[in-house]
Amino acid sequence: VSTDIVERLLSGDRRALARMVTLIENESPAAREYLARLYPQSGRAQIIGVTGSPGAGKSTLVTQVARELRRRDLRVGVVAVDPSSPFTGGAILGDRIRMQELAGDPNVFIRSMASRGSLGGLAAATRDVARALDAAGFQVVIIETVGAGQAEVEIVRAAHSVLVVTVPGMGDDIQALKAGILEIADIFVVNKADRPGADQAAAELRMLLSLAAKQPKSPDVWRVPILKTSATQGEGIAEVVDALFRHRAFLSESGQLARRNQRQVYSEVLALLQHALAQRLKQTVPDEEWQHLIDAVVERRENPYQVADLLARRVGLSDPNQAGV
Amino acid sequence: VSTDIVERLLSGDRRALARMVTLIENESPAAREYLARLYPQSGRAQIIGVTGSPGAGKSTLVTQVARELRRRDLRVGVVAVDPSSPFTGGAILGDRIRMQELAGDPNVFIRSMASRGSLGGLAAATRDVARALDAAGFQVVIIETVGAGQAEVEIVRAAHSVLVVTVPGMGDDIQALKAGILEIADIFVVNKADRPGADQAAAELRMLLSLAAKQPKSPDVWRVPILKTSATQGEGIAEVVDALFRHRAFLSESGQLARRNQRQVYSEVLALLQHALAQRLKQTVPDEEWQHLIDAVVERRENPYQVADLLARRVGLSDPNQAGV
Repeated sequence: VSTDIVERLLSGDRRALARMVTLIENESPAAREYLARLYPQSGRAQIIGVTGSPGAGKSTLVTQVARELRRRDLRVGVVAVDPSSPFTGGAILGDRIRMQELAGDPNVFIRSMASRGSLGGLAAATRDVARALDAAGFQVVIIETVGAGQAEVEIVRAAHSVLVVTVPGMGDDIQALKAGILEIADIFVVNKADRPGADQAAAELRMLLSLAAKQPKSPDVWRVPILKTSATQGEGIAEVVDALFRHRAFLSESGQLARRNQRQVYSEVLALLQHALAQRLKQTVPDEEWQHLIDAVVERRENPYQVADLLARRVGLSDPNQAGV
Repeated sequence: VSTDIVERLLSGDRRALARMVTLIENESPAAREYLARLYPQSGRAQIIGVTGSPGAGKSTLVTQVARELRRRDLRVGVVAVDPSSPFTGGAILGDRIRMQELAGDPNVFIRSMASRGSLGGLAAATRDVARALDAAGFQVVIIETVGAGQAEVEIVRAAHSVLVVTVPGMGDDIQALKAGILEIADIFVVNKADRPGADQAAAELRMLLSLAAKQPKSPDVWRVPILKTSATQGEGIAEVVDALFRHRAFLSESGQLARRNQRQVYSEVLALLQHALAQRLKQTVPDEEWQHLIDAVVERRENPYQVADLLARRVGLSDPNQAGV
């Protein structure tokens, strides 16, 4: 029996996968090396992002979608992310409840992640966990966010297909719009559609989408479907899964999948570099000195260009002509 | 007579100011040094950001606000920014028309800026031009954007007071909301209020604002005013200027000005460092190599961590323990 975590993970060992996720969450230096080795085995799963206002019933919907995917004999990973909370308590409780429903199924893996430090860090960790699940052979990976703010938009950007969940009632639609969510939705779901106003909510979304549409209808343009579900009743779930598969097929056939992959790799490499810069700043400049420098600039004793130059030199980001000086 | 551009600018020489703006636009290395020397004389102007959907009449409104400020004997600078266009043609034409109205007034300075390369670069250049006008003694500097997208939001973030312009009619409100503009508005203006639906537009905005409000009313919370203007008729303009001054006083008295200044300095220094990183990447990695690296990662021949490490080393952003290796 191999003791190498990467080999064990790739051969389907759940404990190795759970350990890997923990290493990623803790930003362990080993995680990076393992992820690099896993990377060639990734890229096969459909990554689905689910976002929407708190209280829209996202958790229940995701659980039902996962069950439907299991009925279709697919292995499903779920990563529930809460960027607003540094504590995993609530999220873990949510896990336990869901675990009861999908308990013991070796083809389902559910994990919660809460904020640890920066948003950039959480978005990167979420992407890396999805990647580990992908490499471990989960054919669909669902990234579910708790809220629907700018942070959540950032997190679901890593997905192939973004599902935005709303409920009947104007307030939630506005919350969704506020965060720029209209642009990122590939599929809209009006959940709790057994409540009054579901048809009106769907009609409002349809109107907003047509107002926001920049391109005429054509085979190369995805027409965002607006689906009604009642997740607690299990109604409308198969249609959601069908739409997710249609979207995946659309991405492949239109050539958008390749472009999306290229853009995501470029963004990831840039983000990794900016993270490296931020790490170096953190290692190099104590908080107290930051505050001191900012005060000096605000009070005009120093200027921002000078301070940036100083810090650039401190982190080793010097001019190529001056390298080694 | 001094030939030093900084001294001439500070003594009120318009040609020195115009030259300085050009140097900033062209990202001339000299600009940075001059800005560093100007910096101690900046920080006195009220910086106003004006954004809103195309066609909302922002240019006319800004011209009228500038005239009202002149009536109150204040020196006014206007920076019109078009992040969507790499060409200055249209913007320059707009300048000329406005110049006729405010022509020959030495206490008004109007300049257009169009996109040159990155959004980050344009936002930084806009901030630097506003700073030069501030140091040159313009007491109010208006940054006006052409559109109302994410780019414009980024650009007006540098302002003390953000004025969002809409017109009667649902579509524009939605466009504004989409870009996350609700959060950044300090003052809403419903322009073209002589048209039907102005009261309704104002009422809708009031409702959206109350839905979005996170805090209860208190002296520390700014209640966003919704003002109606008819810029072409010159109606409602004095009220807009009054509201801008009230907002400035609110910022000072509530202590929010100090916090805003600290946050902006922090953001600026970080942005300068990220710009330095991007510059180093551009100098170091040719486009062709970027494409080659991205393809290699997409095709799983390389992994993103490896590529980021490679590039980090290339730009000098090495580990402190390995510095000098």
